[in-house]
Amino acid sequence: MAESKNKALEIARTYFKAMASKDVPTIMSVTANNVVCNSPIGQLEGAPAFRGFQEGFARMIKKLTLIAAFGDDKNAIIIYDANTHPVPSAIVAELLLIKNGKIASTRVIYDATPFASFMAAMPQH
Amino acid sequence: MAESKNKALEIARTYFKAMASKDVPTIMSVTANNVVCNSPIGQLEGAPAFRGFQEGFARMIKKLTLIAAFGDDKNAIIIYDANTHPVPSAIVAELLLIKNGKIASTRVIYDATPFASFMAAMPQH
Repeated sequence: MAESKNKALEIARTYFKAMASKDVPTIMSVTANNVVCNSPIGQLEGAPAFRGFQEGFARMIKKLTLIAAFGDDKNAIIIYDANTHPVPSAIVAELLLIKNGKIASTRVIYDATPFASFMAAMPQH
Repeated sequence: MAESKNKALEIARTYFKAMASKDVPTIMSVTANNVVCNSPIGQLEGAPAFRGFQEGFARMIKKLTLIAAFGDDKNAIIIYDANTHPVPSAIVAELLLIKNGKIASTRVIYDATPFASFMAAMPQH
């Protein structure tokens, strides 16, 4: 595939595979120290916060299935189906910005509504 | 841009521009009669239902801003910021499948949570 020649897409695929296998160290190996992550949960800044976000997601994952992946030299989009505790099928899109071979930012798009009752039962901070 | 040579992306750009200008007839001109649309609202099938969906969205739009667009021969992804009544900034991703120059399906991904209180006030059917 022509897309595989693009650096951003290559990083995005590495990121997806690491998420799918709950391999947080590999996720962090392609993540910038000053990463910014926007999601329905809010904005996170910095690798430690992002690591916590990924560790929490890893605990929820039953299976991730890649639906689509596109990218160019700087940006990549991945769309995947997330079979999770507690939501069996959540479609997620991530728009990644890659700088110097690392994820500088990701915007995570999904419908948080099905997760609402689950989140309501989690400890608040 | 290399992407502009791809048929699916070209259709997706036409679709986005028509949405942004609330031009539902142009949207429908690139939509298959048996279109399938999945969104947080549910699944719609067929051009009349999709027209209703687009007419409803057009009434909500203040401004749409394209953030990213990628595609190949069959699929395209568009990500845009929707400034709407009642939500001033909703990030939306759409994964489009194009067949014979028409939108055969779109999967619309966004966080419906901010729209919930608005939807609750709308007539139910």
